[in-house]
Amino acid sequence: MDIIKVSGKSRSTSVAGAIAGVIRERGRAEVQAIGAGAVNQATKAVAIARGYLFQDGFNVICIPSFTEVDVDGQERTAIRMVVEPR
Amino acid sequence: MDIIKVSGKSRSTSVAGAIAGVIRERGRAEVQAIGAGAVNQATKAVAIARGYLFQDGFNVICIPSFTEVDVDGQERTAIRMVVEPR
Repeated sequence: MDIIKVSGKSRSTSVAGAIAGVIRERGRAEVQAIGAGAVNQATKAVAIARGYLFQDGFNVICIPSFTEVDVDGQERTAIRMVVEPR
Repeated sequence: MDIIKVSGKSRSTSVAGAIAGVIRERGRAEVQAIGAGAVNQATKAVAIARGYLFQDGFNVICIPSFTEVDVDGQERTAIRMVVEPR
């Protein structure tokens, strides 16, 4: 599954649209964010996507976890959020 | 229900302990964060609390939403996270 990568500069409404699109197509989305600004945008995006998807009959929830990712050869701790219907 | 208020200076493990305690007692916790640093700490706390609670047989999920709160007479937009068993 493609991971939706979010940065602190990502627009939360754009990320929300991406999450909603992936859930409508595949039933489940995965979001990844590194750093406070990115995690904030990702969380806001999930809240917005919830609104979009509620209108389509999906009651989505979020499951956050930690994951180690490689960024330019450096190991970084990212927040991974699985978004899927309850 | 008491709301667990998180700031950017909150320790995520402490917040996680508070979330786990409230869920064990009442089955549901509500977390509130204003600003990127606070939302980041709150999200990390949910990920950590998930680990604590999984050992107790709870599979908790998170439902983020926006809410308006009054801070010193000023209206601010906060992120509210409901944490409860799936």
